[in-house]
Amino acid sequence: MSDYDLHHHGDREVGAGLIDLAVNVRLPEPPEWLRRELAESLAELAAYPDATEATEAVAARHGRQPGEVLVTAGAAEAFTLLATAFRGRDAVVVHPQFTEPEAALRAAGHEPRRVVLQPDYVLDPSLVPDDADLVFVGNPTNPTSVLHPAATLEALLRPGRVLVVDEAFLDAVPGEPESLAGKALPGLVVIRSLTKTWGIAGLRAGYLLAEPGIVRRLQAVQPPWSVSTPAARAVVACCRPAALDEADKLAVLAERDRERLVAGLRELGVAVPGTPRAPFVLVKIPGAQRLRLRLREAGYAVRRGDTFPGLDGDHLRLAVRDEATTTGFLRTLASLLPG
Amino acid sequence: MSDYDLHHHGDREVGAGLIDLAVNVRLPEPPEWLRRELAESLAELAAYPDATEATEAVAARHGRQPGEVLVTAGAAEAFTLLATAFRGRDAVVVHPQFTEPEAALRAAGHEPRRVVLQPDYVLDPSLVPDDADLVFVGNPTNPTSVLHPAATLEALLRPGRVLVVDEAFLDAVPGEPESLAGKALPGLVVIRSLTKTWGIAGLRAGYLLAEPGIVRRLQAVQPPWSVSTPAARAVVACCRPAALDEADKLAVLAERDRERLVAGLRELGVAVPGTPRAPFVLVKIPGAQRLRLRLREAGYAVRRGDTFPGLDGDHLRLAVRDEATTTGFLRTLASLLPG
Repeated sequence: MSDYDLHHHGDREVGAGLIDLAVNVRLPEPPEWLRRELAESLAELAAYPDATEATEAVAARHGRQPGEVLVTAGAAEAFTLLATAFRGRDAVVVHPQFTEPEAALRAAGHEPRRVVLQPDYVLDPSLVPDDADLVFVGNPTNPTSVLHPAATLEALLRPGRVLVVDEAFLDAVPGEPESLAGKALPGLVVIRSLTKTWGIAGLRAGYLLAEPGIVRRLQAVQPPWSVSTPAARAVVACCRPAALDEADKLAVLAERDRERLVAGLRELGVAVPGTPRAPFVLVKIPGAQRLRLRLREAGYAVRRGDTFPGLDGDHLRLAVRDEATTTGFLRTLASLLPG
Repeated sequence: MSDYDLHHHGDREVGAGLIDLAVNVRLPEPPEWLRRELAESLAELAAYPDATEATEAVAARHGRQPGEVLVTAGAAEAFTLLATAFRGRDAVVVHPQFTEPEAALRAAGHEPRRVVLQPDYVLDPSLVPDDADLVFVGNPTNPTSVLHPAATLEALLRPGRVLVVDEAFLDAVPGEPESLAGKALPGLVVIRSLTKTWGIAGLRAGYLLAEPGIVRRLQAVQPPWSVSTPAARAVVACCRPAALDEADKLAVLAERDRERLVAGLRELGVAVPGTPRAPFVLVKIPGAQRLRLRLREAGYAVRRGDTFPGLDGDHLRLAVRDEATTTGFLRTLASLLPG
């Protein structure tokens, strides 16, 4: 068992009537073009799902071969497949980060070691033990919002090691800088999600990119038909050039929204460690636990930070929202902070 | 590795322009009321899925407690969870049966023993070794179509043993006789699917019923959010009394259709072993492999039998279809059988 509640997620913090700054999903519902495609796919549900077309779409989108792609029922399934296929390996998780990789490792019987980065949460490859042969790191990292340079991540690669880079939020960074998704490097596994950008957390759609040998090992432990027909259809639709353009435009808007939020927080004297690059921001406020409850009373759900290894009760994670929401939130926050 | 291609399924036999007697899904698409509910659920996709309501609906439908229910991404996920959670157990699979339980066991590192029933495929509990503590049996069994008495299955229960009864097709037998789904017996796991009756194989929706301790063990290895929002909605919808009534009416029709098919086959001198009770029929015809290819040329896809442990190239599985399809199929079959 873990000392942290690794299964706590932002979706547990939201509630009726609350303005949600807890869940890292940007759209309140999927865009019209995506809903139309999903609705069409409902007529094809009688057939067993087939991820072939989705696999090819992902390969084309990242300049990879179909044999280097595994479409999954969300990133969560990818973590489970990795933990299962690489049982017996010496696993290391770089924290603070999304807790599901460690939870999946533990569920599969691993006892992963933790490398805990300190503020400003910059990754130093020498902190990862040389004998670790299954390493998990997020980029940009949830919840720190820090984006590691591609070269730093590549420095973690070595013969016999599987390096898992969780890029679930990278399509929310304009231009997708520092992505390793297009790089066919031995031992590298890149995980992607469609959930956050396209408002389809409920659909379970994601994928990973890796060398063919790793893809085959993961495929061997994936339940058959794991990716539903609507999820496969969403993957195809979201890999189209028009969707990629739209994602980038959304990312540019989110960047502006984030800068507005960060500037407002710093004006209020709230510490924002590191250099946030993702559509969420980590803050450190003494007594954040109590503040979180008072924000709740005032109508705002924010994500507690103390369930992330390496963080504590003084941390909160705030999802980046539009200008009006941010302004209202900052006003409320100001009224609750000790004068 | 297995000596049979356990991952071969009927969906690989269908093809453009072929009349499909290979896949055991009855409706060509989900019924209108179900499609409407699924379409509605697309507006809720931004939120992470939550299976609470589906869990309660299943519990109410079978007279069980919510803690005795685990909703899964299809029966396929249930097999994987069982194989993973009960790693190290001494597994036995009663064949011929659906091959995914054995495939899931092997993927998780088990080396299951096989108990192979002989025609007429009646289950004799004494065939299952006493030291087996993880036993898989189908009821009604795919592909033999045989329905085992509940008492025979209960005779397989014993302290320390987990008995998994795959009832994926039981809602296609009028009145659901011999079901153990409503029985809270120690060690018993009953698996159900919505796929076959409701034409939603592409959605991945199923569930299992077991004692709370087993449910918790399986939950611990299930990826979070495994059941998508549309799948959870389908589970709720298909547990409503009106849906259960409709399923039973469909089952009555399928029974008539099956009797018509079996009578026609026997008239042609085709051996139908056992007593078929499910919406598919196993046949034994010398040279069935060649016949299958000739049926394909004549426009009919049927399921090969030789990938099922215990069967061989002389076996085919035929899905039960409506009167017109059956008549056409029997006519074609007659023309291809040796005079």
